[in-house]
Amino acid sequence: MSEVYAARRTRLRERCNAGAGAAVLVSRPANVRYLAGAAPHGAVLLLGGSEDLLVHGGPPYARPTEGRPDENLRVHVLPGPGGDPAVAAAGIAASRGADSLATEDHHLTVARHRALRSVAPGLRLTDIGGAVEQLRVIKDEEEISCLRIGAEIADQALGELLESILVGRTERHLALELERRLVDHGADGPAFATSVATGPHSGRRGHRPSDRRVEEGDFLSVCLGADYRGYRCEIGRTFVIGTSPADWQIDLYDLVFSAQRAGREALVPGAACRDVDRVTRQPLDSAGYAEYLPPLTGHGVGLEIGEDPQLAPAAMGKLDACVPVTVEPGVHLPGRGGVRIDDTLVVRPEADGGPELLTITTKELLAL
Amino acid sequence: MSEVYAARRTRLRERCNAGAGAAVLVSRPANVRYLAGAAPHGAVLLLGGSEDLLVHGGPPYARPTEGRPDENLRVHVLPGPGGDPAVAAAGIAASRGADSLATEDHHLTVARHRALRSVAPGLRLTDIGGAVEQLRVIKDEEEISCLRIGAEIADQALGELLESILVGRTERHLALELERRLVDHGADGPAFATSVATGPHSGRRGHRPSDRRVEEGDFLSVCLGADYRGYRCEIGRTFVIGTSPADWQIDLYDLVFSAQRAGREALVPGAACRDVDRVTRQPLDSAGYAEYLPPLTGHGVGLEIGEDPQLAPAAMGKLDACVPVTVEPGVHLPGRGGVRIDDTLVVRPEADGGPELLTITTKELLAL
Repeated sequence: MSEVYAARRTRLRERCNAGAGAAVLVSRPANVRYLAGAAPHGAVLLLGGSEDLLVHGGPPYARPTEGRPDENLRVHVLPGPGGDPAVAAAGIAASRGADSLATEDHHLTVARHRALRSVAPGLRLTDIGGAVEQLRVIKDEEEISCLRIGAEIADQALGELLESILVGRTERHLALELERRLVDHGADGPAFATSVATGPHSGRRGHRPSDRRVEEGDFLSVCLGADYRGYRCEIGRTFVIGTSPADWQIDLYDLVFSAQRAGREALVPGAACRDVDRVTRQPLDSAGYAEYLPPLTGHGVGLEIGEDPQLAPAAMGKLDACVPVTVEPGVHLPGRGGVRIDDTLVVRPEADGGPELLTITTKELLAL
Repeated sequence: MSEVYAARRTRLRERCNAGAGAAVLVSRPANVRYLAGAAPHGAVLLLGGSEDLLVHGGPPYARPTEGRPDENLRVHVLPGPGGDPAVAAAGIAASRGADSLATEDHHLTVARHRALRSVAPGLRLTDIGGAVEQLRVIKDEEEISCLRIGAEIADQALGELLESILVGRTERHLALELERRLVDHGADGPAFATSVATGPHSGRRGHRPSDRRVEEGDFLSVCLGADYRGYRCEIGRTFVIGTSPADWQIDLYDLVFSAQRAGREALVPGAACRDVDRVTRQPLDSAGYAEYLPPLTGHGVGLEIGEDPQLAPAAMGKLDACVPVTVEPGVHLPGRGGVRIDDTLVVRPEADGGPELLTITTKELLAL
């Protein structure tokens, strides 16, 4: 794996046109992990000069974003507590004779940036913007394999839940049980806060589980994902509770299903992101639900659960092969509930069989 | 409650000497919640001018920091997705005729700060630093009551775990079970990632639960806390597994216990934070464990789990009454394990009975 990280750092240097005197400071944790293999709490990565350096401080409060650091990367641990690795890295860059330092201005705070400037007043500070995020969009097969395993884990956790008794249990308990099952099946943790939404809450994106209990006749929508070696996938399904769904439930489900299928089928290399969003949104718009739709109908996934590209009306850019994205239209009718259906897929050329579906739990409307 | 938030905002304005043309932009989520009662995802609070305004955007991915917003506070929701509430707020401040805007430069990124400047080039941007964090140090009785309930919940969750069979179970499963029990007893969630450390991992601060199973003869150290209405407490205990602890385990436990007691007894209004740290550290230093000690022996808690004050060798400042802090010395011997004992207490004058212990689980060395 070590060569993978070194190759990524080389690509970043090329992208930044980083010459001999130009150093780069990467501070966003997912970007540090992408380039260094691991992101200990607060770690930053200094590129350029004589050698690349992972700089970090003391022990964390919370769980560190884990991973195994590239063994060919030199690590510098701050001597005492309370130091800022970014400031220390700027000092090291200056002492090595760098004349400029490119920082991630969308991540670094104003106060830290000011501290960098005062520790290394001779360095010209520039902004690399989202250069690392852009490198991260197209995944290699190793990364896709982590997403695939994560999706299998999420499918297993969801499948087991469906076999249990649901009526009478609270959203919170179902969410916690799903998270426990994710870990049981080998996830490093949930990819994001598991959402379980019942009855009037169903279909609401990012719904925070409450103490509401599952009732007969409810829609139940669930959204979960596994973190596997740092890679995060997402699956969302909606079910009905009880023997037979009401007509409005069947109609709404069929509509969202057809929207989601249209979105999945539009995932081809070269497709404009806004076009994928448009075809996903179109059946729902036509049925009069325009105002009940979410701002995005999908997004990239990887080391973070919300990555580029975005599938949204104003999104720029096109899809490439080997880009994993979600397709997740939904309709939430205030007071009544609704439906969301969410898959993670990898964009693949038609010659390779078209989009690869990672989350394979059935999308039939199950009555549980 | 509404008057509480309005009073806090008034205190902040006084602290910033915010005159008629001076607006303040609060962006750090815990600070927004403190001043507005709630912090919807991405929300910022604009103070000054004709009226205070809570500005926020669309729906979040993850769980929002919740809470009920002050009903007397005007709320401005951004019209479309993708906007930055901080930038929108700066535009509003400028349109209201403010001449300066104070921002939280330790939270705002360089890129957002640049965007503020470009949307409101006439505004003089200043830094309010940690002004809100400083207001948050001394808690009112309502806040302390939330911490007290959170501590009771954590005590209950821990107590139930101790009654179950532990040998053979993994750190991860014990941590998940504790988190489930926290929620069962009414927590909004865990206050931070629950840490369960067995055998050679025991006593390590912030240890991330692994797949190691509990074995006879292990030290088992556990650190958990409840989030109750946004307020986060912390409790840590160390146990031995099996019928009788080894001599070295008893000696190490007694030593850490005496250090922790010394720290607790030093919590009086007016005590220097570094002195509390020193008396906590002293028994461990004398026993030759100086190099195995954590950088902090305690810290404030509240809307965040790590707040001011810090109990550390270089800490400045003194303790006040009504400041909740942890006292949490520990020794981790690499390869062998160790002991941590951690309580949350509220500093109280001696006339009121001295420090109020919120986490009341026994600190006897239990053999489980």
